[in-house]
Amino acid sequence: MYVSHLECSKCSATYESEQVMQLCSCGGPLLVRYDLRRVRDAFRREALASRSPTLWRYRELLPVRKEEHVVSLGEGMTPLLPLEWVGPGVGIPRLLMKDEGLIPTGTFKARGAAVAASRARELAVAISAMPTNGNAGGAWAAYCARAGIKAVIVMPQGAPSINRKEVAVTGAALYLVDGLISDAGKIVAKAVADHGWFDASTLKEPYRIEGKKTMGLELAEQLGWQVPDVILYPTGGGVGIIGIYKALKELQEIGWIGEKLPRLVAVQATGCAPIVKAWSEKKGESEFWEGAHTVAFGITVPKALGDFLVLEAIYATGGCGVAVTDEEILAAQQMLAAAEGAFVCPEGAATLAAAIRLAQKAWISPEEQVVLLNTGTGLKYPETVTVDAPLLRPGESLPPG
Amino acid sequence: MYVSHLECSKCSATYESEQVMQLCSCGGPLLVRYDLRRVRDAFRREALASRSPTLWRYRELLPVRKEEHVVSLGEGMTPLLPLEWVGPGVGIPRLLMKDEGLIPTGTFKARGAAVAASRARELAVAISAMPTNGNAGGAWAAYCARAGIKAVIVMPQGAPSINRKEVAVTGAALYLVDGLISDAGKIVAKAVADHGWFDASTLKEPYRIEGKKTMGLELAEQLGWQVPDVILYPTGGGVGIIGIYKALKELQEIGWIGEKLPRLVAVQATGCAPIVKAWSEKKGESEFWEGAHTVAFGITVPKALGDFLVLEAIYATGGCGVAVTDEEILAAQQMLAAAEGAFVCPEGAATLAAAIRLAQKAWISPEEQVVLLNTGTGLKYPETVTVDAPLLRPGESLPPG
Repeated sequence: MYVSHLECSKCSATYESEQVMQLCSCGGPLLVRYDLRRVRDAFRREALASRSPTLWRYRELLPVRKEEHVVSLGEGMTPLLPLEWVGPGVGIPRLLMKDEGLIPTGTFKARGAAVAASRARELAVAISAMPTNGNAGGAWAAYCARAGIKAVIVMPQGAPSINRKEVAVTGAALYLVDGLISDAGKIVAKAVADHGWFDASTLKEPYRIEGKKTMGLELAEQLGWQVPDVILYPTGGGVGIIGIYKALKELQEIGWIGEKLPRLVAVQATGCAPIVKAWSEKKGESEFWEGAHTVAFGITVPKALGDFLVLEAIYATGGCGVAVTDEEILAAQQMLAAAEGAFVCPEGAATLAAAIRLAQKAWISPEEQVVLLNTGTGLKYPETVTVDAPLLRPGESLPPG
Repeated sequence: MYVSHLECSKCSATYESEQVMQLCSCGGPLLVRYDLRRVRDAFRREALASRSPTLWRYRELLPVRKEEHVVSLGEGMTPLLPLEWVGPGVGIPRLLMKDEGLIPTGTFKARGAAVAASRARELAVAISAMPTNGNAGGAWAAYCARAGIKAVIVMPQGAPSINRKEVAVTGAALYLVDGLISDAGKIVAKAVADHGWFDASTLKEPYRIEGKKTMGLELAEQLGWQVPDVILYPTGGGVGIIGIYKALKELQEIGWIGEKLPRLVAVQATGCAPIVKAWSEKKGESEFWEGAHTVAFGITVPKALGDFLVLEAIYATGGCGVAVTDEEILAAQQMLAAAEGAFVCPEGAATLAAAIRLAQKAWISPEEQVVLLNTGTGLKYPETVTVDAPLLRPGESLPPG
């Protein structure tokens, strides 16, 4: 393993990595740091050819010490699909979509859960708790079950009902809260303080981000160690975008990609757009968004702990923030299904809606290579689709096409 | 491309492959035949190392002539997971599960749809119709959307509601029928005759089986070109098991695997077990199962067109048929989620229930390597899980673990 230490993203304090850690004493999230010179010497791109198509192919850039601690359900190396029908239609002929629907539990949250649960097992965590908008909890419950860690999951009553099911089926302790993820977060924080549990909240432990950064590693590998011009990411807690940025910086340091970075775009819904607002005001942090509501439930995060890191990634890459309406999101979801055969989650659809806006404004130009990150499968969001199907009796006839 | 011709699985009549074909004139399903001597000379196992982790890595054993006709959503190379908790507990320490939940549309049906839609595009099919228990229709609608083929889908009213949603979102023409898949099949057959559409029914065109056989190719590759001792497969229409058998025979002919074949087990539900009944009576064909009903809706097929091929594969490999109850299925589903973190579909869970029975009867012995085929994600079957979660108000406390 090549981890050298943990480092606070706010005050730069350092911590030894072989202990269970949550936030820095200053309240800042901790980031995993590697001895990248040693990685550079020991890890060759050619080594990847013989490795399995999971995120563990990048083990030199991951924080699990012993292979026997790896908790895997086969996550990673999700497809990067050309959108050959939609792309030209919206003025972005080189449009691609990385499809995180093809991963355990059906969303990118599996990446963070796989790496964090592996590391928690390695550090002998017994009970963990997590507030969630649904998908992170589903993933955490699954990987904890496989790791032999007890999971306590608290989610808003308004989260998609499938998330309750996928948590319950693992035997995890599930609680609903009549409020938002911020309310769930407070309940978990108190329980962690009261009972001494491990806090698996977004960015309150250092390892979920390491799992999510593998999206950035895969993208670079899938593009032949090039980066695209633009990456659009649906942004709630923001760990995906932070992770991709961290991955690309690490790849630069080990010499696998060049100086160019993609412009990172944080996509939010107009019903909950604290980071887009902060970006438009050139601020370094966001403010709590009152009355948050959108069909893209997974990005209903009124105030993200890592907002400053998301904004840093946007500013450093010349990216931007874009908020789209629920109507645009649902139209984009239908467009992807009807033209490309991809049934994506509303959060993922939001990135297409945002790309359309940015192409119309010429912020994206027609020769650019653009990647949409679809963070999960539409199968978890049946309520976003209306069905109007005739009911036949046996023996009835179908009309001509 | 190495396809030499199409061959009837009943009367051995042959047909030229470069035309749109349905059944043989005798009513038998057509199988794709390859010039396996040429494949043996041209295709080396080592070539796979540099190919993408999709089923198209086996293109020499697939029937699409031109790469530009391939319709792909990134399907294939699904994980083969060790069941290290469940296996020892049920007396099968070397138990593995191939997880077809990690594939577009969340079920193995994507494999058949990807290859058949690619080939249909290649042969200029414009409108196609399919009767389905749900998942095949979802996959067919998705790949037809991507292929630019109009899809007409007829499914029982009792099919899982998510299947309606995934078909509707693609813009396909969806009809429900107040009956079983056999009733949907009759409606489609009549419409095909009336309107001249392409019939995409199970085994009524030759190419879905070619997609499904890739499960067998992948299994062999993932096990280092060895085969396991036993493969358990949930059996409705039976194309999965027929395809795996065909794949293994082809691999033998090109010299990639040895003489040993796995014992193939057809798993059905006690509420719809025509093939298990035929096997127990040593018959070559099944009879229509009256009053079919099981929680594993995908295998509610009262009479499969390819029943004789399934039975042939079982007999030829020394396999068997096993029927399990809905109670056993739901218990196995929970066991896999709680111990392994895998939320599988009831059809997939049925294979674990069957393996438990066969281990108890010593038909499977403890040193054998056994593969369960989980044909899809549990996320498409929320109704199989009961949730009992307390509702908290903001500020309430959680009890200790």
